[in-house]
Amino acid sequence: MSEGEQSAIPAELMRCRATIDNIDAALVHLLAERFKATQEVGKIKADAGLPPADPGREERQIARLRALADEAGLDPHFAEKFLAFIIAEVIRHHEAIQAAHGSPPER
Amino acid sequence: MSEGEQSAIPAELMRCRATIDNIDAALVHLLAERFKATQEVGKIKADAGLPPADPGREERQIARLRALADEAGLDPHFAEKFLAFIIAEVIRHHEAIQAAHGSPPER
Repeated sequence: MSEGEQSAIPAELMRCRATIDNIDAALVHLLAERFKATQEVGKIKADAGLPPADPGREERQIARLRALADEAGLDPHFAEKFLAFIIAEVIRHHEAIQAAHGSPPER
Repeated sequence: MSEGEQSAIPAELMRCRATIDNIDAALVHLLAERFKATQEVGKIKADAGLPPADPGREERQIARLRALADEAGLDPHFAEKFLAFIIAEVIRHHEAIQAAHGSPPER
């Protein structure tokens, strides 16, 4: 970034961006842990012959996260979209594990 | 859930799910804080007449998060998709703020 561009950014904006960068680092590390846990779930499910997706569990997760989001001041609709985004990735992982175990994924 | 279904879930799977639920609660709370910071950014940008989107900033965020993801054992491609997902929501917020201030959004 040139000095000219740098000076055009208000100091308050730079402070907010530093906060956002810290939160993003925390989010990335939590997501890394979450996928470790779901990879483990995938292995347990494959070993037990359980299907990769569990609609009942997903419904309970959505309801819980919407309630937590509402309390935290986050748009519950966004929280639901966020969970769907993560779960789509998790199901891709689970299907890959199931396929590696030789049994076809249930969806 | 019936008792029959409950007993069909391995104990190890239930422990993993409890971890995932704790991580999800943390993610929701961090996302709530992140949107507070970006709402503030939106106000600062609108007051300063800056455009809602900032492609240079986004490029730096993507490069940083990919590097952090790689270190943390998270798929860098997923980290990039995740940031794009969040930024799309942020830009929608910024455009709404800009529109409320009476000046048209730049994109």
